[in-house]
Amino acid sequence: MLIVAERINSSRKHIAQAIKTENTEFIKSEAKAQAAAGADFIDINAGTFVGEEIERLTWLIEIVNNAVETPICLDSPDPKVIEAALPLVRNSPVMINSITLDPHRLETLLPLVAEHKAKVIALCQSETDMAETADEKVKMAEALVERVTEAGISIGDLYIDPLVYPVSTKATSALDTLEAIERIMHEFTGVHTICGLTNVSYGLPSRKLVNRTFLVAAISRGLDAVILDPTDSALYGALKAGQVIAGKDEYCLSYITDFRNGRFE
Amino acid sequence: MLIVAERINSSRKHIAQAIKTENTEFIKSEAKAQAAAGADFIDINAGTFVGEEIERLTWLIEIVNNAVETPICLDSPDPKVIEAALPLVRNSPVMINSITLDPHRLETLLPLVAEHKAKVIALCQSETDMAETADEKVKMAEALVERVTEAGISIGDLYIDPLVYPVSTKATSALDTLEAIERIMHEFTGVHTICGLTNVSYGLPSRKLVNRTFLVAAISRGLDAVILDPTDSALYGALKAGQVIAGKDEYCLSYITDFRNGRFE
Repeated sequence: MLIVAERINSSRKHIAQAIKTENTEFIKSEAKAQAAAGADFIDINAGTFVGEEIERLTWLIEIVNNAVETPICLDSPDPKVIEAALPLVRNSPVMINSITLDPHRLETLLPLVAEHKAKVIALCQSETDMAETADEKVKMAEALVERVTEAGISIGDLYIDPLVYPVSTKATSALDTLEAIERIMHEFTGVHTICGLTNVSYGLPSRKLVNRTFLVAAISRGLDAVILDPTDSALYGALKAGQVIAGKDEYCLSYITDFRNGRFE
Repeated sequence: MLIVAERINSSRKHIAQAIKTENTEFIKSEAKAQAAAGADFIDINAGTFVGEEIERLTWLIEIVNNAVETPICLDSPDPKVIEAALPLVRNSPVMINSITLDPHRLETLLPLVAEHKAKVIALCQSETDMAETADEKVKMAEALVERVTEAGISIGDLYIDPLVYPVSTKATSALDTLEAIERIMHEFTGVHTICGLTNVSYGLPSRKLVNRTFLVAAISRGLDAVILDPTDSALYGALKAGQVIAGKDEYCLSYITDFRNGRFE
């Protein structure tokens, strides 16, 4: 299970504040804490700083480059920002978050993914459409697989996010996504699936309970990457138990080791 | 989701002690607590009192009959004990825990299930074999469906337990059971699936974490009944969040109500 750690995102109040005040130590500690908690990639997003995103992102990259050896996941709504930031990232491989079927994003980003041998998160949405049913999600996944592999990128570098929508507005939202994960993993050999967790619980109380419940159901369908906060011990415990249930942790050795290290408390 | 509450079982130390000392108030409070926590059936098991099981079970039934209006699930390794106890149960319907493909149990119990219009838990095992793979579980489920319906019992009264074995000894144990649940629910229209949770985590630390992780994965495959302790708030919360994720809680109303009533704390 590949973990993309989500904390360094300017949509979070403490991070936005640290960016504004150029609090290097705070960002450094966020990177270190997530790396120590098992992050495979540290996501970095300064997207709320419209007009000065590239400067802010550059500052963040420099700190994370120096703080940890963990690779970086460059996260921006603006493909031009990703293009400008890519050469600054030191640790390898880099991950790009994200492409969609929007031709503008594809045209800018796919050559960069190929050139940098990057890993890439691809969302099941187009310029105009969101994929709501499992069929729609699988269809968009197929189109993404086509575009990405046509660009000379290995399918093993592609992380498809089928996108889960709030269950509070549509009861089958989560189930549609679970079915899509299972089918995508089955139909496109070698591809990965990834998911953010917070959308699913929008509008509900005890959101973290719903998020981790969705996570373990998704792992049992084959999800092999996730965007989350690995320092959340209840969520991390759910992830590890999910791996056990999904038969992905031979002799439960990883689970037992994490238990002994007090990671589930 | 049908909840069979498991606490009144003589394999639990406090319950065995209460039975020995004929502590009526303790058993009464166990029944009431589970009924208040959402039990649809109160399981009653005095199986460890070999040689005096029927007397002990009779004593338990009388207390639960008087304590709550919740129906009883009669649980015994001995079909003769179930036969003797059945006429004593007052609340309707009664559930019987359990039959297997063992002809001895089937011949004694199926006519009683039919006569009492009981619900019945049926385990995917025979006199000689345990079903380990999903294929074996589905095959045994098919045989159980045949035997039960041939006996004039409605398939809607049948609760098939595919039996989950410890993931600590075989990594795919849980996954095999999840696949079996999905296929059984799909192939035998109208049947129910039920599962106990404790086996899956045998030999592991933080067993409750693994148990509730397996539960939510199973609910997402269609599991519609479970044997558990509904007074365990973390487990109950997982169950309710599992229902939300599985699209079985329209507008999440049941989840939100339980949250407001402090059930997830």
